[in-house]
Amino acid sequence: MSPRFAAAVLGAGGYIGQEFLRMLSGHPLFDAALLVGGGRSEGRRLEEVWRLAEECPAELARRRLVRAGPGRVAREAEIAFGALPSGTAGPVESALIRRGVAVFSNSSDHRLDPDHPLLLPEVNGEHLGLLRPSARTAPLVTNANCSATGLVLALAPVLSLLRPRAVHVATYQALSGAGYPGVPSLAVTDNVVPFIEEEEEKLALESRHLLGRVSRGRIVPATIPFHAHCVRVGTREGHLEAVTVEAGARPARRDLLAAWRSFDPLGELGLPTAPHPPVEVREAPDRPQPLFDRWAGQGRARGMAAVVGRVRWEAPYLRFFVLSHNAVRGGAGGSILNAEFALAKGVLRPGRR
Amino acid sequence: MSPRFAAAVLGAGGYIGQEFLRMLSGHPLFDAALLVGGGRSEGRRLEEVWRLAEECPAELARRRLVRAGPGRVAREAEIAFGALPSGTAGPVESALIRRGVAVFSNSSDHRLDPDHPLLLPEVNGEHLGLLRPSARTAPLVTNANCSATGLVLALAPVLSLLRPRAVHVATYQALSGAGYPGVPSLAVTDNVVPFIEEEEEKLALESRHLLGRVSRGRIVPATIPFHAHCVRVGTREGHLEAVTVEAGARPARRDLLAAWRSFDPLGELGLPTAPHPPVEVREAPDRPQPLFDRWAGQGRARGMAAVVGRVRWEAPYLRFFVLSHNAVRGGAGGSILNAEFALAKGVLRPGRR
Amino acid sequence: MSPRFAAAVLGAGGYIGQEFLRMLSGHPLFDAALLVGGGRSEGRRLEEVWRLAEECPAELARRRLVRAGPGRVAREAEIAFGALPSGTAGPVESALIRRGVAVFSNSSDHRLDPDHPLLLPEVNGEHLGLLRPSARTAPLVTNANCSATGLVLALAPVLSLLRPRAVHVATYQALSGAGYPGVPSLAVTDNVVPFIEEEEEKLALESRHLLGRVSRGRIVPATIPFHAHCVRVGTREGHLEAVTVEAGARPARRDLLAAWRSFDPLGELGLPTAPHPPVEVREAPDRPQPLFDRWAGQGRARGMAAVVGRVRWEAPYLRFFVLSHNAVRGGAGGSILNAEFALAKGVLRPGRR
Amino acid sequence: MSPRFAAAVLGAGGYIGQEFLRMLSGHPLFDAALLVGGGRSEGRRLEEVWRLAEECPAELARRRLVRAGPGRVAREAEIAFGALPSGTAGPVESALIRRGVAVFSNSSDHRLDPDHPLLLPEVNGEHLGLLRPSARTAPLVTNANCSATGLVLALAPVLSLLRPRAVHVATYQALSGAGYPGVPSLAVTDNVVPFIEEEEEKLALESRHLLGRVSRGRIVPATIPFHAHCVRVGTREGHLEAVTVEAGARPARRDLLAAWRSFDPLGELGLPTAPHPPVEVREAPDRPQPLFDRWAGQGRARGMAAVVGRVRWEAPYLRFFVLSHNAVRGGAGGSILNAEFALAKGVLRPGRR
Repeated sequence: MSPRFAAAVLGAGGYIGQEFLRMLSGHPLFDAALLVGGGRSEGRRLEEVWRLAEECPAELARRRLVRAGPGRVAREAEIAFGALPSGTAGPVESALIRRGVAVFSNSSDHRLDPDHPLLLPEVNGEHLGLLRPSARTAPLVTNANCSATGLVLALAPVLSLLRPRAVHVATYQALSGAGYPGVPSLAVTDNVVPFIEEEEEKLALESRHLLGRVSRGRIVPATIPFHAHCVRVGTREGHLEAVTVEAGARPARRDLLAAWRSFDPLGELGLPTAPHPPVEVREAPDRPQPLFDRWAGQGRARGMAAVVGRVRWEAPYLRFFVLSHNAVRGGAGGSILNAEFALAKGVLRPGRR
Repeated sequence: MSPRFAAAVLGAGGYIGQEFLRMLSGHPLFDAALLVGGGRSEGRRLEEVWRLAEECPAELARRRLVRAGPGRVAREAEIAFGALPSGTAGPVESALIRRGVAVFSNSSDHRLDPDHPLLLPEVNGEHLGLLRPSARTAPLVTNANCSATGLVLALAPVLSLLRPRAVHVATYQALSGAGYPGVPSLAVTDNVVPFIEEEEEKLALESRHLLGRVSRGRIVPATIPFHAHCVRVGTREGHLEAVTVEAGARPARRDLLAAWRSFDPLGELGLPTAPHPPVEVREAPDRPQPLFDRWAGQGRARGMAAVVGRVRWEAPYLRFFVLSHNAVRGGAGGSILNAEFALAKGVLRPGRR
Repeated sequence: MSPRFAAAVLGAGGYIGQEFLRMLSGHPLFDAALLVGGGRSEGRRLEEVWRLAEECPAELARRRLVRAGPGRVAREAEIAFGALPSGTAGPVESALIRRGVAVFSNSSDHRLDPDHPLLLPEVNGEHLGLLRPSARTAPLVTNANCSATGLVLALAPVLSLLRPRAVHVATYQALSGAGYPGVPSLAVTDNVVPFIEEEEEKLALESRHLLGRVSRGRIVPATIPFHAHCVRVGTREGHLEAVTVEAGARPARRDLLAAWRSFDPLGELGLPTAPHPPVEVREAPDRPQPLFDRWAGQGRARGMAAVVGRVRWEAPYLRFFVLSHNAVRGGAGGSILNAEFALAKGVLRPGRR
Repeated sequence: MSPRFAAAVLGAGGYIGQEFLRMLSGHPLFDAALLVGGGRSEGRRLEEVWRLAEECPAELARRRLVRAGPGRVAREAEIAFGALPSGTAGPVESALIRRGVAVFSNSSDHRLDPDHPLLLPEVNGEHLGLLRPSARTAPLVTNANCSATGLVLALAPVLSLLRPRAVHVATYQALSGAGYPGVPSLAVTDNVVPFIEEEEEKLALESRHLLGRVSRGRIVPATIPFHAHCVRVGTREGHLEAVTVEAGARPARRDLLAAWRSFDPLGELGLPTAPHPPVEVREAPDRPQPLFDRWAGQGRARGMAAVVGRVRWEAPYLRFFVLSHNAVRGGAGGSILNAEFALAKGVLRPGRR
């Protein structure tokens, strides 16, 4: 008798969908029971449509992607991990929770909904409180945009020390952030592209939302202004961000490093995908770099830690770089960690069926 | 009173279509009168959909792409340059020649037709003889696949010296060979792809066809077997090919170099887009390279010359590399040169209208 | 009888040295009389050590690089263009001006010297006044660091409108900024590197210096604080910069665009390498991009214009991107323009010898 | 009491040296006891000079590289793994074996020596017989050039079926094949380079040597002619090769696939770094690809299997692609496997000291 939850992955033909499958392989709590994929993926074996440089999980390689509506998903799965495109995702996810399927989604459609937490467990676990117990719907929890995730994870441990008045960020975002096929090679070979549709807006809105507080069952977003320049560069994975915080206080650099290094709010929960610590600090003068640091984190949490480096004051500005894996921490892994956290907090209950 | 031909470019939203427009800018014989483009390009200004690294021609930048059927093309243009996708191109081109529009096409649909020359003027100008004078249709002339073009251009000057028994070729083909959007960046960053749909077959068939002789109004393809490995690499432009000729004779290396260097069959015709010589030989130990050699050729013939290098015997094999610009000599420029040649040979007649 | 100056290029084996030679080819005022290069370049023909993707000038291709000390340079050249490495450049340049050779240098050693202008003619032409007439030494003029150059060129036209309180910039700097061999391919393939030795310091210091005013024969640097994150990305040429200006005023966006577009302080001087206008503004949502915009500028000024785009207010911050060609405007072309400007202003006098 | 051999890694600051260290981490037989590195690496911690995208082994990260002559190496190590540059390696390795240190080297200096086997255990294990028992010297075993290794591994299982008359190969070699710093980024961005110094000669000579038979204590090289075009492309790791075998026999394709799949001559020996099978065959139409296939092999043998694909007859030519990891199977892993094999065969004896 297995205590694992039967999970559906929505959008299993896409890059993030496959990252979900890779990370669910061997997962102690969730079992990839249903691979949902339409279009050119439908009916094909996972190994035939596999896009990640990491190996296709052997036990899933010959499984076929199926076109499945909410009804079938509800019959075969207790939870669903969402990697559908914006616009498509919203109605599907709504239909699923009405049928009792808990949804943990990387899609953006429900991110700012009042009833559905935008969750980054190390930062705003209390936002789970938005979920109102209901006989009518299962929980729907989203994770944030990939560039907002890394940034907020880096800011959270030092927020009270710095008391930011404004945050400026310029990004160096990897190709996989656009999914597959995503960016044409001719658009980016020997080039960088200083524009990603709606990305700067999402980064600002979602960062404030993640850092918001719960008041009377609603999120009151943080008031810190975020100003982003979002740029696509030719790396495969790992979003690098150059951060400048206009600080309202001036803590010593060593206190900031200590704050980052001691930050580990999920330390006791034993979540399989949680990195400890969630923020690593590098002192080498030229780090973090996507190639070397995107997989920070150990074991099942590989790729889940953000890496901070080049921390320096030019008062009143604290300046640093942060790197996080867009498809793992900022994508599939974010949702899986959310599900683990929800389970630990009793929001997702085993044996519901 | 202008002696220039009004020309339509079919597929002006695509990469080769735009290469046509770039090369037609300021052309003394052909005037880009109609920019035909459907899908997302329709109705947009050329500068809005421009994909080439080279600058969009100023005089065309604000011209709009139009959706135009054969009727409109026939009303507004005397000749058409073809850059439509395979499958789409064939019927459109057939309709155009029935309406009296001469077609010079880079598309593959009509390449091996008995009535329509597959032309590489320096090599098989006599294939123009396939065109039968007719009151009913205008001429349709195609140019070959981009990797066949460079290879055959390099082989032609030394063919009688070498008497090849077999030709082995491995290609290093640029991203632009797949058009736009073409190859996804995630498919080729830190990767090469040893497969291009139907490319090896085309290379072999079209090379033999280009080198064929005309007998009783038909092409008898050359019997030399061509064996190709076709591979996509991450360069923007310029197809490099590693060539091994199993030779039936063993001419001295210096005689081969002399044959290449003295080869210039179009020398007297004064064609604007013809390079002189059409094959350049480099003696440096590490050339040709796409970055440095793809633009070989002077003035309007820039990018029209093939570059040969690393010529060496390992008897009975002559071995060398050849590079040619896939989008220019192997694409738009090939068709423009064909039109110039047809005009010089009296097949395309000015003032037809 | 030629009025052209005999020019030596110092460091002709390097990337910027070769950019000098490319830009001097056919120059109406300066003649590349002496190609100075040591190490592996010494004694070799220019074509054998050529590194640029653009063609080696035909008339220089077979010229040999020579090792030449200040004495020989002074005998054979009236002016010298400097592309030597930091540390090496300083003493050589000092020796040359003592021998009467005017020096226009891209090297950093003398950039902040009190007697030697750091010149960006469109911005601080009056800094030429630092040169004190002297029987003893010829003038030495430097151009700024490549990332400072593009930034200051973009800021100058809007400075009085914006009254900046602080300038934040994050760069996306091309590989050629590190010279040749420069960045190892393994360091940057599928990677970006958030550190360039001393670059952030140079950018800040030199930007303030360029924007300084002359007071009693000395430069008083501008007081605007510049805060830079400098990052190497995998493009060949063209430094992109994400700029955030904390503005003390709030001019309308259209007034800013107008200020950029009407900016042309060198308009009347007829300098061959001066672009008109020196700052181009793009309105497309995803520009400037290195691949498409690095060669902005016409004719001999190709690559000399900076390109501004994505101009937007998030008050009090004006935010935009600027791109400039690091090896042309931020390198060799900067020094050539400086020499042309010095000549026009009577500081460099023809027929001196 | 540990049965592990104390091992020195020669050239630990280089790319292959670090691959040795990565693969020795946790190795059951060999312990990285001494990290030998000169030049800029000397005295630095391994983590400070680490160049691989894979993580620096935690237990070695803070170990310092030391300059150590043969005397010190002999005092502190029983075996040495060699990753020194050609020219440097030869005398050092000779000195070591005279002092009783067994050497397993990836360097080329001793590859074709009569007394020192050039070993690829799955293919020519009997070449170990070249080692003559001696009181005077320890064994010295080399592994072959990275492109020869993958090719011969692919050919060996089908050699008797095909009876090759000639082998043609064109390579797509990764950047890491040139070590670090190796290929300048400006040489290869948007480019491929059809020349690698001495590589084509090595590939031919070493392939014939690997496939040779032992006769009277000497290697008689195979007589099959190998003809290589060697080309550098912009991938990080994994050499792809396009192979055309002129076959003297015409076995069915399915028999060839079966021969590859059943090939596992080391199956019983239990060598930790041996892949089973050593050659994997892919049937997908576009494989092998460096990004997806370079890490073929399981556990400690990850990256040790060659991958064959696109197997097709164009009689008399059998044509296919093979990929192998140049730095693992064709580098450090090759030498480690050689040492394991020598140990299993009793040539390298534990407890010698």
